[in-house]
Amino acid sequence: MLTVYGMADSGNCYKVKLALEQLKRAYRWVEVSTKRGETRTREFLARNPNAQVPVLELEDGQFLPESGAILCYLAEGTPLLPADRLERARVLQWMFFEQYSHEPCIAVARAILRYQPPDSPRRAELPRLQERGNRALAVMELHLAREPFFAAGRYSVADIALYAYTHCAADGGFELARYPAVLAWLARVKAQPGHVLLG
Amino acid sequence: MLTVYGMADSGNCYKVKLALEQLKRAYRWVEVSTKRGETRTREFLARNPNAQVPVLELEDGQFLPESGAILCYLAEGTPLLPADRLERARVLQWMFFEQYSHEPCIAVARAILRYQPPDSPRRAELPRLQERGNRALAVMELHLAREPFFAAGRYSVADIALYAYTHCAADGGFELARYPAVLAWLARVKAQPGHVLLG
Repeated sequence: MLTVYGMADSGNCYKVKLALEQLKRAYRWVEVSTKRGETRTREFLARNPNAQVPVLELEDGQFLPESGAILCYLAEGTPLLPADRLERARVLQWMFFEQYSHEPCIAVARAILRYQPPDSPRRAELPRLQERGNRALAVMELHLAREPFFAAGRYSVADIALYAYTHCAADGGFELARYPAVLAWLARVKAQPGHVLLG
Repeated sequence: MLTVYGMADSGNCYKVKLALEQLKRAYRWVEVSTKRGETRTREFLARNPNAQVPVLELEDGQFLPESGAILCYLAEGTPLLPADRLERARVLQWMFFEQYSHEPCIAVARAILRYQPPDSPRRAELPRLQERGNRALAVMELHLAREPFFAAGRYSVADIALYAYTHCAADGGFELARYPAVLAWLARVKAQPGHVLLG
């Protein structure tokens, strides 16, 4: 059986949970807290030297880190990942966008507001994170005003990747009401069969 | 013919150039300077609303942004991208690692030292970028002490993605002599047929 090493409140780990649930795959979840330093133990670093969750342990005992790689691995050969070459590239386009231009702003703003004390010096990062996060949301809005999903005209792992930290962006101080097409897409994603909640 | 909108000195654009040269694909290069604001024009935003290079224009006029997505698109069906499901996931694992844990430190440190004036306030970011960049290099060193390349035991787009900003990491103040396995891998990548230089 597959094993996920993850933290329940992490959007990156939630992506893997959502894909496994929607693909109806059996899996075991091992909770690992980055806040308690559990990704820095010798045991965990043997699974992922980059000290991050999620990590997927395959049936044969191999470990696969990076949520984007895990999503593509799980979705291969299923409706969640198209077979067409350009459609696959579009899925990856949005998954790389998420990891480079979206998550480092929206997830980090959320983490500062949710886990740091109110007097944390890291609050000084918030204006820049919010400016850049809003830029990412505006790029999504532009796309979703014309298309129902991010790639290939249908629900895919690109939507799972972008849903994870967009649906809880208010935790990071973002006003989703400014992005009506994003809000409508969030509702479409939530209505997909097998959808489960974060946490 | 394919067209690349790119900036010659950008590592992210160099990845696309390197793949096209090694795959012996004909292409046209259109130089776009982010420093002169050329990714913020209305014309460029129609190609990529996220205002970044590289963008690949396909034969049919469609635009594909995100270097990672472009690399996978170009490499599909060639020796640069394995067909096996887990090997493909390993390629993506390292490409997502590069975009999330490597490029935002190593490329940004290089950009600050190379393009910002010596009295730029952005120099204050350097210690943190260098700490994190060295962490990424240490993760690479650990892998390359055991394996010749990043995925599937052979040269792939994962190596192209990681080579781009690693080979010029000294520009960002990183001491590559601390990472002998990384240095040996850089030499192996440079020795691949069709290798071309940055710039």
